[in-house]
Amino acid sequence: MSSTPIKVLFSAGDAAWPAYRKALPKAFAQHNLDVDLARDHAPGTVDYIVAAPNGPVRDFTPYTRCKAVLNLWAGVEDIAPNRTLTQPLARMVDPGLTAGMVEWVVAHTLRHHMGIDLHIHGQDGQWRDHVPPLAQDRPVTILGLGELGTACAQALAQLGFPVTGWSRTAKSIDNVTCLSGDEGLTPALQDAEIVVLLLPLTDATENILNAQTLALLADGAFVINPGRGPLIDDGALLAALDRNIAHATLDVFRTEPLPADHPFWAHPQVTVTPHIASATRPETSALCIADNIARGEAGRPFAHLVDRARGY
Amino acid sequence: MSSTPIKVLFSAGDAAWPAYRKALPKAFAQHNLDVDLARDHAPGTVDYIVAAPNGPVRDFTPYTRCKAVLNLWAGVEDIAPNRTLTQPLARMVDPGLTAGMVEWVVAHTLRHHMGIDLHIHGQDGQWRDHVPPLAQDRPVTILGLGELGTACAQALAQLGFPVTGWSRTAKSIDNVTCLSGDEGLTPALQDAEIVVLLLPLTDATENILNAQTLALLADGAFVINPGRGPLIDDGALLAALDRNIAHATLDVFRTEPLPADHPFWAHPQVTVTPHIASATRPETSALCIADNIARGEAGRPFAHLVDRARGY
Ligand SMILES: NC(=O)c1ccc[n+]([C@@H]2O[C@H](COP(=O)([O-])OP(=O)(O)OC[C@H]3O[C@@H](n4cnc5c(N)ncnc54)[C@H](OP(=O)(O)O)[C@@H]3O)[C@@H](O)[C@H]2O)c1
Ligand SMILES: NC(=O)c1ccc[n+]([C@@H]2O[C@H](COP(=O)([O-])OP(=O)(O)OC[C@H]3O[C@@H](n4cnc5c(N)ncnc54)[C@H](OP(=O)(O)O)[C@@H]3O)[C@@H](O)[C@H]2O)c1
Repeated sequence: MSSTPIKVLFSAGDAAWPAYRKALPKAFAQHNLDVDLARDHAPGTVDYIVAAPNGPVRDFTPYTRCKAVLNLWAGVEDIAPNRTLTQPLARMVDPGLTAGMVEWVVAHTLRHHMGIDLHIHGQDGQWRDHVPPLAQDRPVTILGLGELGTACAQALAQLGFPVTGWSRTAKSIDNVTCLSGDEGLTPALQDAEIVVLLLPLTDATENILNAQTLALLADGAFVINPGRGPLIDDGALLAALDRNIAHATLDVFRTEPLPADHPFWAHPQVTVTPHIASATRPETSALCIADNIARGEAGRPFAHLVDRARGY
Repeated sequence: MSSTPIKVLFSAGDAAWPAYRKALPKAFAQHNLDVDLARDHAPGTVDYIVAAPNGPVRDFTPYTRCKAVLNLWAGVEDIAPNRTLTQPLARMVDPGLTAGMVEWVVAHTLRHHMGIDLHIHGQDGQWRDHVPPLAQDRPVTILGLGELGTACAQALAQLGFPVTGWSRTAKSIDNVTCLSGDEGLTPALQDAEIVVLLLPLTDATENILNAQTLALLADGAFVINPGRGPLIDDGALLAALDRNIAHATLDVFRTEPLPADHPFWAHPQVTVTPHIASATRPETSALCIADNIARGEAGRPFAHLVDRARGY
């Protein structure tokens, strides 16, 4: 270990600082890293930047000795296209974030599967005793089989849902039917009763749910989007809600917060949740960051590097 | 196999017959049983009765050669006290019923854990972006560790909830803190944030959630009852909703259907579901019945026998 401390710049929103100023030093200590963590290091002195797209650093050019930019968020569509950022860029892979996403996806999948809204809205004295089908009779498709999609696929399969997943490259996951590539998309969506979007936002994934692909889903299908807003063509979704889509639960939007006059808010077949599907959890994500700094200091390859050309 | 067919009387509500008249013969064939299934065998000729509490047979005295009564339901509180029933009584253990219960319990546990109702009721343009805690920080207690309680405990533990279970006799279940007996009840309920009732209704379990035991739960706790209505003292629950209980989701009631003027319906902190947490599924439960008849015919002990003195 060098005798001068490693300079780490924290460049995220003010709201994140109180939690990370505690969690990061703990994680650095766990990795035996001697770190000088601050929000205002002189650019030319910084070894690593912990960054969020809403942080102050937008121009990475002055950070000439910075060895890596470590993103606090799992999604990198706002930072990956930044041409001033020439350092290695790592995204967040946080067991706390993954756990939260699994909980959110399982909760809303079961909610739609079991028709729970009918009861929440129907506390009117009427005994509507229709028993829902079992999970085993409800095919679910997950677009995206990365950190989050894979964990969600496994949790849903564990509950008995027949799960199909789709990714760019071929995968093999126990109890999950894995499809991939352009030719895999139609069979993945065809007759799916619930579709969950856990793709990153890239040129290739924008508007992946559009008039044509929405029409592939089963009659009465549910759309669940904890990925990114632009994965869905909003107009096509609104039209499909009058056709085969029974309900959409959306956590992410083209504009966030979703404007109060957006038709999604008032639509009886849409549930808006305010980008809370999952959050980076300081205690566990600090360990991901410390681990990557330890890798850098030991000359080992960084984990979770973003492929800038691919966009994720 | 004897040359005269086994006479099985189907004594359940009319609504159940169409599904079971198909499912039972299939299941009998799978067990190589030669069965004469009907709803109107002469009592003195009947070998087995497939019974539901809402079926026509209430006096079992004339069924002199009947070797066992096979209940279609998991709960036996309506049939176990019947003194005319002197034959062995088996209850239903059905993988389909268990799967359905796990889905219902996991769905409502996650719903309360994540505060989903706030969003379902709050589609008003306000961006309430409070991120819920992780399951790992939400202690759940399940009263009853039988077929259903154990399966639910395991599914919730799998999702990361710290799960405590309580039963009459001591148990050991991976990743579940198991408590038992009278002295185990207080530590099981103390500070629990979600409590799920999966006990049978017996003299010993009636009103198990009462003013005193409800007060043990954490501030802001949730009560989920898919067991039986009388497990809860209704008045004490209504009072506790003004104190430490945030919400109760109830599937079962002292009177079913729950009368339209019962205060549970209109209470903003109560969700009524109409005894749909789980249902016996004809295809799988028919196999449970066929298996028990095969046991009887082979002179092997019946499975899932009810202890009449214990009441379950
Ligand atoms: N709402 C929230 O609170 C929240 C929180 C965290 C993350 N998110 C969103 O969730 C997304 C997924 O996160 P993650 O950690 O699972 O990402 P990840 O590990 O990078 O996984 C992305 C997955 O998408 C697949 N994919 C990418 N482009 C594709 C294409 N053109 N065709 C088919 N498949 C494609 C990838 O395929 P390969 O495996 O073949 O590369 C991979 O399976 C993030 O990008 C973010 O937008 C939302
Ligand atoms: N809402 C619905 O749709 C629905 C559907 C099916 C069933 N149910 C209800 O769910 C109940 C449970 O079903 P199950 O199949 O899991 O029953 P089970 O296998 O008989 O299990 C009952 C559990 O309760 C425990 N128990 C009984 N009396 C107790 C006492 N005095 N103190 C502590 N623990 C006690 C038992 O302890 P031991 O293990 O030590 O014996 C056992 O763990 C049924 O009785 C029925 O009322 C509801």
